[in-house]
Amino acid sequence: MTISGVMRTGEVCIRVMDLDAAREHYGERVGLIETLRDEDGTTYYKAWDEHDLYSLVIRPADHPGIEHVAFKAVDDATLTEVAAKLDALGFPTTELPAETMPRSGRRFRFTLATGHEAHLYAEKEQCGNGMPLRNPGTIPPPGTVRGMRVVRLDHCLLGGGDIDGNIPVFKDAFGWSLSEKLIDHETEMTLAMFWTGSNTPHDIAFVRQPDDNRFHHASFLLESVNDVYHAADLMGYYDIPVDVGPTRHGITRGATIYFFDPSGNRNEVFTDGYLHYPDTPTLVWDTSKLGQATFSQDNTPRQSFLEVLT
Amino acid sequence: MTISGVMRTGEVCIRVMDLDAAREHYGERVGLIETLRDEDGTTYYKAWDEHDLYSLVIRPADHPGIEHVAFKAVDDATLTEVAAKLDALGFPTTELPAETMPRSGRRFRFTLATGHEAHLYAEKEQCGNGMPLRNPGTIPPPGTVRGMRVVRLDHCLLGGGDIDGNIPVFKDAFGWSLSEKLIDHETEMTLAMFWTGSNTPHDIAFVRQPDDNRFHHASFLLESVNDVYHAADLMGYYDIPVDVGPTRHGITRGATIYFFDPSGNRNEVFTDGYLHYPDTPTLVWDTSKLGQATFSQDNTPRQSFLEVLT
Amino acid sequence: MTISGVMRTGEVCIRVMDLDAAREHYGERVGLIETLRDEDGTTYYKAWDEHDLYSLVIRPADHPGIEHVAFKAVDDATLTEVAAKLDALGFPTTELPAETMPRSGRRFRFTLATGHEAHLYAEKEQCGNGMPLRNPGTIPPPGTVRGMRVVRLDHCLLGGGDIDGNIPVFKDAFGWSLSEKLIDHETEMTLAMFWTGSNTPHDIAFVRQPDDNRFHHASFLLESVNDVYHAADLMGYYDIPVDVGPTRHGITRGATIYFFDPSGNRNEVFTDGYLHYPDTPTLVWDTSKLGQATFSQDNTPRQSFLEVLT
Amino acid sequence: MTISGVMRTGEVCIRVMDLDAAREHYGERVGLIETLRDEDGTTYYKAWDEHDLYSLVIRPADHPGIEHVAFKAVDDATLTEVAAKLDALGFPTTELPAETMPRSGRRFRFTLATGHEAHLYAEKEQCGNGMPLRNPGTIPPPGTVRGMRVVRLDHCLLGGGDIDGNIPVFKDAFGWSLSEKLIDHETEMTLAMFWTGSNTPHDIAFVRQPDDNRFHHASFLLESVNDVYHAADLMGYYDIPVDVGPTRHGITRGATIYFFDPSGNRNEVFTDGYLHYPDTPTLVWDTSKLGQATFSQDNTPRQSFLEVLT
Repeated sequence: MTISGVMRTGEVCIRVMDLDAAREHYGERVGLIETLRDEDGTTYYKAWDEHDLYSLVIRPADHPGIEHVAFKAVDDATLTEVAAKLDALGFPTTELPAETMPRSGRRFRFTLATGHEAHLYAEKEQCGNGMPLRNPGTIPPPGTVRGMRVVRLDHCLLGGGDIDGNIPVFKDAFGWSLSEKLIDHETEMTLAMFWTGSNTPHDIAFVRQPDDNRFHHASFLLESVNDVYHAADLMGYYDIPVDVGPTRHGITRGATIYFFDPSGNRNEVFTDGYLHYPDTPTLVWDTSKLGQATFSQDNTPRQSFLEVLT
Repeated sequence: MTISGVMRTGEVCIRVMDLDAAREHYGERVGLIETLRDEDGTTYYKAWDEHDLYSLVIRPADHPGIEHVAFKAVDDATLTEVAAKLDALGFPTTELPAETMPRSGRRFRFTLATGHEAHLYAEKEQCGNGMPLRNPGTIPPPGTVRGMRVVRLDHCLLGGGDIDGNIPVFKDAFGWSLSEKLIDHETEMTLAMFWTGSNTPHDIAFVRQPDDNRFHHASFLLESVNDVYHAADLMGYYDIPVDVGPTRHGITRGATIYFFDPSGNRNEVFTDGYLHYPDTPTLVWDTSKLGQATFSQDNTPRQSFLEVLT
Repeated sequence: MTISGVMRTGEVCIRVMDLDAAREHYGERVGLIETLRDEDGTTYYKAWDEHDLYSLVIRPADHPGIEHVAFKAVDDATLTEVAAKLDALGFPTTELPAETMPRSGRRFRFTLATGHEAHLYAEKEQCGNGMPLRNPGTIPPPGTVRGMRVVRLDHCLLGGGDIDGNIPVFKDAFGWSLSEKLIDHETEMTLAMFWTGSNTPHDIAFVRQPDDNRFHHASFLLESVNDVYHAADLMGYYDIPVDVGPTRHGITRGATIYFFDPSGNRNEVFTDGYLHYPDTPTLVWDTSKLGQATFSQDNTPRQSFLEVLT
Repeated sequence: MTISGVMRTGEVCIRVMDLDAAREHYGERVGLIETLRDEDGTTYYKAWDEHDLYSLVIRPADHPGIEHVAFKAVDDATLTEVAAKLDALGFPTTELPAETMPRSGRRFRFTLATGHEAHLYAEKEQCGNGMPLRNPGTIPPPGTVRGMRVVRLDHCLLGGGDIDGNIPVFKDAFGWSLSEKLIDHETEMTLAMFWTGSNTPHDIAFVRQPDDNRFHHASFLLESVNDVYHAADLMGYYDIPVDVGPTRHGITRGATIYFFDPSGNRNEVFTDGYLHYPDTPTLVWDTSKLGQATFSQDNTPRQSFLEVLT
């Protein structure tokens, strides 16, 4: 297959402290569709145009942050093969007990060099996007697209010390491309790396941080800049704390708003960007243009954006 | 690599009868960037956000239509490998003389089951998208994005008799996915097939037609529905013959306008659509919903759209 | 006052044959808000961003068409004054019984030269746009903006024989501007006139037709071209009969879709256009450019658009 | 006439220190069209969809700020009449020498209560919007719409002490409406007033400031939120200092970016907002919601926005 191996970041599981507030945030305001709920309160969501049963999982906890990020392989044979590669590359995998994550197939766990728990899986129940597979039409039933009108889970950005240490995972085991990177303009040290598994400008990114296993944000795809403004108007209406935006990133060229869920986890809505292919040159940004690299419409870095992680 | 094998439809070469008119059309009005010109008048264009030196080639002739379509493999080893697969699958390949197409590397020619000339290549000179690779910013210099503001060559649609006969090429040799197909609702005969090499809803499509080697359209990507309207306003300004649109397809969900170049070749501007992955179910449309499948905002098929090919 | 006299077309009352179907159409699909209902089934609607209690009234009948169009004067003194002018100009007015239209003040009836019943009023109960008058915010509560997301009643287009005969009403009694007109390019006969009471490109228009008292369409304002596409997608979803569009008018420069309610009355969704002022020159279109005047993106007139009225 | 009296803010004259930089800013970057140039360097601009010869004038000086703002009356009789009203209301008018402003007719000067020089005129040469008055089409020739794609001068915001003192000018002499105002939530003192002459949410606004005759910004109309993003991308490209945005105002509901010209004068690009009529209730904001009143997507006031004037 042309898209083979590990297709995408398929699932992010984050910790929330006030479950009711989190459900209102992700369900009513962001507009995700709740598909499952565990007895302990863990709640599973999908965006409307995803076919898999869930892509965002929120789990009750006493502090915010990320539990795990999970990557979907194209089939079970690939799953086995990539797990073996990870083992060989020094990222030992453990097969998780069945139903660790509900209605999802075989699943391997491993730890990224940045300390994050990662999963690899190939199967998850598909519930579709609300449109039939025969003569689907072009829009789901009215009422399906709600809240901020998010279309898909797009990517996440994680923080940790040894971001170079993840190169074997994404480059060698997954076969992903480095679409962009940010380097220190004096030392040339890599400060952030952006990895993509297909045409999107990034599926996951890492920023160098003093502490491991940190969560910067999970991002949801929007259809258009118009929907970015619509989402921003809703944020104002609900008085959702906004970190930055609406604006555009230099890195990825994506139009963006950063905001916080009630537990302090950063979310993003994102659109635009370019089509990446393996023959697209890797773009390099340096800290002499940190403002432009992060927020390209006013070329001004934001302290909170650089420093607040959960 | 995750995107491996044959990445995309990288080049379309079409015949034009009035070269000056064609250059004005593709260069000034569609807004492609001319990058090369042969002595015989053959002219090479790229859209602004493509890195390769050309994606559309127009060649003087006494009748319109397509000369060849070319697919870009991810690297030279893949090129060799896919050419061997094509040979084995009954699509004998011939290596073309160097510089058959300028500043492009090794290239194999083969004939599709629908009678179209196809090329396979892995190398083409890259001239970039007008933005540096270090600290690129987010837009190219003002003046770069002109005319209809097309971003990339997106796909083409070809007509011929044995569209099923192309399955080995796209499925087995290229490893592409069938994103959608149209079938006769009584006989279940497949009438059109839509193939994608990555996340886009299609890279190439085929429609069953009595005659082989026919050209339906070449399509260029736009950024937004706003740019669809902008393109439509330009079409009115220049009195470009419009076939259909602005509207939206059922198949691919793409927003679209079909129009004709001065030689009668159909062009399309296209945006929206969904992200396709190998685990996205193939969508099936049948002719009981032919109107919706083709033009989903009024569910009305157009005779010219179904019948006019070059 | 700068905007004084007769401010706008404030109300259109149309006949519908299947009341349930009409209510589903205007309420659920177009997205108007029902505010009143009479015992005979007459139903009153407002668009979300209108402050007055209703702007569209649908009345059960055995044939479609327009009952009356009503114009809102700036205050009661103006109402008296304009009614007197109409009387003097040969358009005798009759004061209608109180509560002819509910929760609306003094109201005069007169007949246009094209045979249409027209009302003039200055008071109607205001129920607001769902946002408080103190610290209103920028969007109404989620759920308020539904269906096609129409913002306001924009204008209507009526057909009849003596369209010049209405000049005294709009020019002399109302003080409105002729923003555009369409003339026969050979005889210079005026075929259509577009009148505006303020900055919008038209509040009401008339097209010359063999029969008097005909209704061409009522039009609702949208916010953006994106919402035009959203409305078109809904039309496809609900299989609403579309006459023309999405496209753009030459006259008024408005982006448009024409479609029909279940009784066969034509509706329009409309956006863009320019800001008209009294010092904006009147634009003249002639029938040598009829295609561009009506539909400027393909410069092609539509027979149904020119001939179907109710 | 329905729009009668004083139609709009028709002209703003501002001081610039570096003329070449200012011409590049307003001409190439903002995208205004230069129409006249005086020997002293004073340069006259119009936006593409304005018919009058100029709406923005830049004049060389050693400090930034506003020279005068000018209001256009509907005709010469109105000019005389409004000038007489101003005299009677305690705003003595002086008729300016002919050709004080080029190719403009009779012109009266008076001083606002906030210390600003104001002009009143009824005639200015019209050069059109690049489109013929007969069969105009819908877009001007390609190349006309450049830079940030601004459509018109929209409004300006001025600062001074006695903003209530301007009520007689705008309410009584001009007949304009107060569309919105901002008050102190404890003292109820009016802190800002927004006046409109027609359907736009404001033609001019005043903010209470310790010093008279201060200039907050001149604002240019854009067509859509997409063009707001386009303008923002250009600001990043040219490294134009951005004050705030893209975002949306609470007051006026307008989408906005504030930025600075090379002399430090604040500019705005603006779109959206609502249609104001004389029967639209005046909206009141108080300082308990200052964040929302100013920037409604994050409900956060900006110090620079409140304090920097020229």
